[in-house]
Amino acid sequence: MFGALVFSSIERPVEDKLRRDMEVLKQDFLNQSCVNAASLELFLVKVMTANKYGVSVLRNSSVTSNWDLASSMFFANTLVTTVGYGHTTPLSDTGKAFSIVYALIGVPFTMLVLTACVQRLMFPLVLAPVGLLQRSGMEPRPATAVHFLLMLVLMVLCFFLAPAAVFSTLEVSWSFLDGVYFSFISLCTIGLGDFVPGMEPGQKYRQLYQVSVMVYLFVGLMMMYLLLRTFHKMADLHGLTTFLQLPRCEESDQDEDREPIVESKPDDQAPPYLNDKAASRPLEPGSQPSYNTINKG
Amino acid sequence: MFGALVFSSIERPVEDKLRRDMEVLKQDFLNQSCVNAASLELFLVKVMTANKYGVSVLRNSSVTSNWDLASSMFFANTLVTTVGYGHTTPLSDTGKAFSIVYALIGVPFTMLVLTACVQRLMFPLVLAPVGLLQRSGMEPRPATAVHFLLMLVLMVLCFFLAPAAVFSTLEVSWSFLDGVYFSFISLCTIGLGDFVPGMEPGQKYRQLYQVSVMVYLFVGLMMMYLLLRTFHKMADLHGLTTFLQLPRCEESDQDEDREPIVESKPDDQAPPYLNDKAASRPLEPGSQPSYNTINKG
Repeated sequence: MFGALVFSSIERPVEDKLRRDMEVLKQDFLNQSCVNAASLELFLVKVMTANKYGVSVLRNSSVTSNWDLASSMFFANTLVTTVGYGHTTPLSDTGKAFSIVYALIGVPFTMLVLTACVQRLMFPLVLAPVGLLQRSGMEPRPATAVHFLLMLVLMVLCFFLAPAAVFSTLEVSWSFLDGVYFSFISLCTIGLGDFVPGMEPGQKYRQLYQVSVMVYLFVGLMMMYLLLRTFHKMADLHGLTTFLQLPRCEESDQDEDREPIVESKPDDQAPPYLNDKAASRPLEPGSQPSYNTINKG
Repeated sequence: MFGALVFSSIERPVEDKLRRDMEVLKQDFLNQSCVNAASLELFLVKVMTANKYGVSVLRNSSVTSNWDLASSMFFANTLVTTVGYGHTTPLSDTGKAFSIVYALIGVPFTMLVLTACVQRLMFPLVLAPVGLLQRSGMEPRPATAVHFLLMLVLMVLCFFLAPAAVFSTLEVSWSFLDGVYFSFISLCTIGLGDFVPGMEPGQKYRQLYQVSVMVYLFVGLMMMYLLLRTFHKMADLHGLTTFLQLPRCEESDQDEDREPIVESKPDDQAPPYLNDKAASRPLEPGSQPSYNTINKG
């Protein structure tokens, strides 16, 4: 909300100026007695440049701004989720600088919130169902596999196919494949920006629509992370991460190259860095000390 | 490389057709005796649509294709790294479908490669320097903080400021801020696509330039992950992750909501899912069983 207000206040005047300039340019071009190749070329260069920044010279699209509050929120949302469609981009240097600062704070914070949400969702959506499957007599490995497949099917239904159907209804020029393509490109955070909802002229409730898409993107991303995490857990259980020598989802004490960042067992000298707290807890021989011995010891 | 070849073979014909259509359209428009508002509007709609797909009607930009081998590789690279500039996007339905399949395989594989690389780089770039700082008599917490700050400064110098200087030299229309903005937006994988290197007409060694940018993106992303991982480790050591109740970088046995996905201690009945291997290793009372007891037991 704060980001949207700042973006809106920085970019709106610049956009309005560009929009007025383009109107004048178009009128001038139309008032010419006859066009030649050179003047058309010059005109088109300017039109393209304006178009790159999301300002169109077309008559019916020039009503709504790209930097009203809902659109600015949508832009800020695509920044912090790293989707980045680029359908509108900051025009001014101030806007660009603010984008950098905003993403610098916003991206890690969003990832933090998403991680925290996923962690809270792990019990009801992953641990509890897998436990249920096991109590009904399933082996642990098939249970996690069945659960993962179920989650995958539900995910594809609820976050790819259903939204694609909605988008292909709401957007006149989108086919169903376009909808699936948009959902996929968005939830992978690729965000090419060739399809962006709410950009067609004359859409009713455009602001509400943009906010809904924002909510869809956030929840969708969260579910993607949850799915990835579930897959990582399943891969751990099936020995896949060990096979590929990758970090495990839950535990990592076994790998030889994942030593603790702090050297906790110097051989021949008294450790100069062990503070009183840590020193008061003797290291057991053969135990692999880690952060915890320093944090909690 | 394979993705680039497929994208190139799918999209090149479609692009060539659109390009020829645009040429004809432009000639038709120029041959009109005089333009009026309606015909200009119609012409501009078509120009804009073509422009959205990366086909420009401008004379000097129509020489190079967006789907030659280097450009296709660049596009494939932005897909799998989830940067997704969207400066060129697939035109055909086949191209869109292939993008989905390609990203579905490519994105996880790239993340896997990046994770594996980061893991191999942890020792020489993080553990060894921190160990060195500690041996020189530093406490562990300041040592990690100093090391992180050093890495951050080096990262900003080598992956933001230096490339920005290079880009602002090579690209005629980019300022230094534009270069920094591009580097930042790219390495956060936001990829707005308002600035994309190698898109200006008449650039020499364009293909080599695009491949260099690809290498820069890949190495830059790797260093970003390494920096994030280092920060995570430092946050663990300083008790920040515990404070925020987030998953720790290395260990996670302590949190009550991070139970193992597999229920390993039913109370009153013989566990039906313990296979022979796992059963042969008795669970110690009070030990917290996890994946490993099933994998390795």
